Amino acid sequence: MDKILRVNMTTKEVKVEPVPENYAALGGRALTSQFVLDEVVPTCDPLGPLNKLIYAPGLLSGTSAPSSGRLSVGGKSPLTGTIKESNAGGITSQKIANLGYKAIIVEGKPAAGDFSILKITTEGAELLPAGDLAGKGGYDTVAMLREKYGQKVGVIFIGPAGEMLMANAGVGTNDGDGNASRYAGRGGLGAVMGSKGLKAIVIDSPSTFDVPVKDPEKFKDAAKKFAKILLDHPVCGQGLPAYGTNVLMNIINEAGTLPTRNFKFGRFDKASEVSGEKLAEVATARGGKATHACHPGCVMRCSNVYPMPNGKVCAPIEYESAWAFGPNLEVGDLDDVAMMNWLCNDIGLDTIEAGATLGVLMEAGVIPFGDGKAAIKALEEVRTGTPLGRIIGAGATFAGKLYGVTRIPAVKGQAMPAYDPRSCRGNGVTYATTPMGADHTAGYAVTANILKVGGYVDATKDEGQVDLSRNLQIATAAVDATGLCLFVAFAVLDNPEGLPTVVEMINAMYGTSLTTDDVVVLGKSILKNEREFNEKAGFTKADDRLPEFFYNEELPPHNTMFTLTTELDEVFNF
Amino acid sequence: MDKILRVNMTTKEVKVEPVPENYAALGGRALTSQFVLDEVVPTCDPLGPLNKLIYAPGLLSGTSAPSSGRLSVGGKSPLTGTIKESNAGGITSQKIANLGYKAIIVEGKPAAGDFSILKITTEGAELLPAGDLAGKGGYDTVAMLREKYGQKVGVIFIGPAGEMLMANAGVGTNDGDGNASRYAGRGGLGAVMGSKGLKAIVIDSPSTFDVPVKDPEKFKDAAKKFAKILLDHPVCGQGLPAYGTNVLMNIINEAGTLPTRNFKFGRFDKASEVSGEKLAEVATARGGKATHACHPGCVMRCSNVYPMPNGKVCAPIEYESAWAFGPNLEVGDLDDVAMMNWLCNDIGLDTIEAGATLGVLMEAGVIPFGDGKAAIKALEEVRTGTPLGRIIGAGATFAGKLYGVTRIPAVKGQAMPAYDPRSCRGNGVTYATTPMGADHTAGYAVTANILKVGGYVDATKDEGQVDLSRNLQIATAAVDATGLCLFVAFAVLDNPEGLPTVVEMINAMYGTSLTTDDVVVLGKSILKNEREFNEKAGFTKADDRLPEFFYNEELPPHNTMFTLTTELDEVFNF
Repeated sequence: MDKILRVNMTTKEVKVEPVPENYAALGGRALTSQFVLDEVVPTCDPLGPLNKLIYAPGLLSGTSAPSSGRLSVGGKSPLTGTIKESNAGGITSQKIANLGYKAIIVEGKPAAGDFSILKITTEGAELLPAGDLAGKGGYDTVAMLREKYGQKVGVIFIGPAGEMLMANAGVGTNDGDGNASRYAGRGGLGAVMGSKGLKAIVIDSPSTFDVPVKDPEKFKDAAKKFAKILLDHPVCGQGLPAYGTNVLMNIINEAGTLPTRNFKFGRFDKASEVSGEKLAEVATARGGKATHACHPGCVMRCSNVYPMPNGKVCAPIEYESAWAFGPNLEVGDLDDVAMMNWLCNDIGLDTIEAGATLGVLMEAGVIPFGDGKAAIKALEEVRTGTPLGRIIGAGATFAGKLYGVTRIPAVKGQAMPAYDPRSCRGNGVTYATTPMGADHTAGYAVTANILKVGGYVDATKDEGQVDLSRNLQIATAAVDATGLCLFVAFAVLDNPEGLPTVVEMINAMYGTSLTTDDVVVLGKSILKNEREFNEKAGFTKADDRLPEFFYNEELPPHNTMFTLTTELDEVFNF
Repeated sequence: MDKILRVNMTTKEVKVEPVPENYAALGGRALTSQFVLDEVVPTCDPLGPLNKLIYAPGLLSGTSAPSSGRLSVGGKSPLTGTIKESNAGGITSQKIANLGYKAIIVEGKPAAGDFSILKITTEGAELLPAGDLAGKGGYDTVAMLREKYGQKVGVIFIGPAGEMLMANAGVGTNDGDGNASRYAGRGGLGAVMGSKGLKAIVIDSPSTFDVPVKDPEKFKDAAKKFAKILLDHPVCGQGLPAYGTNVLMNIINEAGTLPTRNFKFGRFDKASEVSGEKLAEVATARGGKATHACHPGCVMRCSNVYPMPNGKVCAPIEYESAWAFGPNLEVGDLDDVAMMNWLCNDIGLDTIEAGATLGVLMEAGVIPFGDGKAAIKALEEVRTGTPLGRIIGAGATFAGKLYGVTRIPAVKGQAMPAYDPRSCRGNGVTYATTPMGADHTAGYAVTANILKVGGYVDATKDEGQVDLSRNLQIATAAVDATGLCLFVAFAVLDNPEGLPTVVEMINAMYGTSLTTDDVVVLGKSILKNEREFNEKAGFTKADDRLPEFFYNEELPPHNTMFTLTTELDEVFNF
């Protein structure tokens, strides 16, 4: 990973550049956020020529480090107006790394409607006309490109939502089976890719794990140790491999912090109907898979393959997606949930934001709560860009504002995911303060609040939540730099050997002598960069708050409200 | 004007309060902005229970001071998120003042769909159920209330757009003939009124000019002198009374700064077809009026009465409205323009924002440029709240974002009016920096840039524009406190006796001994209050800029771009 690919969509020039020295130690989110801070005008129009889109494998991607295949995508978000890093599984990060690229930077802007694909092989990179791929859904896009360039290619793509510049458009990648369903979904970076006229990136690499490593023996030992640490942990080694992330449905429901009916209640009486356990049962009975790895070398295999009655297959259904289309809409039918998930994958939308948007439209009376079929019908309108489709494609905040809804569960324009901040307050602190807009992956306090992983902080009390969120946000930023899946955090938080082993892998790979303290330094510096960009873009602490209704509506069953305000300003006091 | 009416829409309590001492010297915008700063949580949801809506006559309203009938409406704007003062002509300011109220404060929030009217008479004030007024257009609303309460009542109302909480809903008032067409249109305060469940305020006052004055003789002399100053000025005494504000159409077109085709060009080949001269000709031929006063005692009489072929009457068509639906959409048919204006009056939308929204939708290809009939059809959808209607009702920024448009001519979420900032740069400075979002009335540099009133500053050069805009913004804020129509500024800027005479009227009325310096102090303090609110709401200098395309697209015929950036931060250096 000693070169950078820079693609100018105005001139169609494709250039290979050396990695600037001060970027050499960065990867994943650390790298995308540094590039965005250094190269993007903070006040620019996210869909204009001044924004850039950056794809970066993590520091460990493309090696045999377990579960290290995350791809970071960064830019200025059209949904939030903030800096954005969103990352995805799938096979593309490993392939980009194996072709030796530390990052791909896409800049400039072509004429509207001029769509290209970027093909990257061992021979080099070139831009080609997208031709009849334009307008195609994610599934067809990946199928057509695999057909043309080989079944083993990695594909980064956008669906029609991205082409139509919708603020909730995600950036998709494929898994090893060609499923077009792994998304760097959050924050509308698919619309940025659409504004660049880039329909897809095809990555053809013969290797998956062959990124050069300075000390192969040391690396192999550390990787082996790390795999064992993961497999020994009850969440990483048992819960996730058995039921995937949706093992959380019953747990979060039981905890009374499962946002139901657009964050009106904390429990859903049909939660078990859309749970991981139910999913595993139905998927298996229909010939699908209860467990599946999104990229080679993942030991957690938290994904799944869910065949639907209409013959289509949704793979995977994650917990947050099942929540977004299930409890959040009072929909208890797993097939309806799967269909909405599939539609988002195909049209190219983030599932969390799409579900939240449908929830807000239900709040407005546009669609009835509980009516999965009506929600599916509305979601289908996104593909053709009808006015309602445009509203849905724009995300929950835009949709809610259009209908005068005051109960919009979003921060900085991005919808909250599947954990109510009133009774999972650590997550509330993260939603309010992360530079990303409401995002559970930015500092997943569910660990200590609910799962009692990495200590325990009472979910319904304020004490300790600011410190918890701060530490998690710092650690997460660092993990997002490595290419490791965030789920390794469960094991890393509980096992004192976890973090040192990650550092061992990095040191063996790069010939460095970093300590665990350096990881903290890295995490802090990423967050500081992101905050600096946001500040220059016009964000202030007034933006680091939850919507009003979380402060004045009690959430059953705990009948608790969010109460943290100025304390939130202490999160970034480092 | 020694009392304040406070109406709580949650409890339905109506209270009369004395005027706090520190508010006694304030009126109009000075008073609404002070109340908003003191009583509204800056980060609150504009449509939630924490926002307040404040109506305040100017300091001179309800007296015989010429052209002093402006009503200020203030609150936090759902369109911009900033503090907002929007003011309107019509007869309500005089009537509220004559009933002795310095302000009406509406607070709290009832259940959705629970609409009331507030009736204010010499007997007191009471809330009554809106009954079958709910859902009615502006024209029917005013007609029904005049039918019920007498033809002389003043009515402040919202149309369906306000009831449906649309971000571009305005607050309407009637003129002396009952036309439901004077709007405090900008910034969506109609949606705030809708969120309060207040369909209309009916003001029944036997008097128009009887607000007590400390020194009646001195006041009469000053008012007489002020009327002469207005009548002697070529704009106030001749241009406006002859052709109304739309006398500007040919002038601004000739100056090459008439935004055409969504700010693509600076001239429109059919400008004369929608000009004030043409309007006067057609209106007169059809039995309408080329000139008309929006409230008793106005000597400028810049309004008009335009009968349409369909039998309806649009009164008036202002320059900015004619621009919004004419050149901005490349529509050269005055009847189409009039119909769009009428629809906005009836549905309850701000015309500038509505026209800009249609322009942005034309930019997106949703409606063809130049197709007035298609624009009318689209605008009609706002009344029933179809998805497209919701998009239009939300204003240009929301609509543009929904369609991925990067050419959205707006600042802080509010659309620019009828003067291109590239070749009327003083207005550009005002658009960028006023606390209100893009607004020509906040600092009308057309005076010195184009009309050579109050000096001359070259419209296409940067030099002097910041100072010009600053001085105008300060003076305007003060004028907006008096209840005087902003158009008095033409005369006041050119006649050294102008400002002293305004001060004489105020001193005679209140027994004060203010100087012209005090007017400047007042103007500055209003702006400082407004900036303070905005800062607390999360606005920064990053928000004080024009959209990107004004900095990188040349405007013909002068082929000039906007170039002011950090200089804009010097506007508020006082």
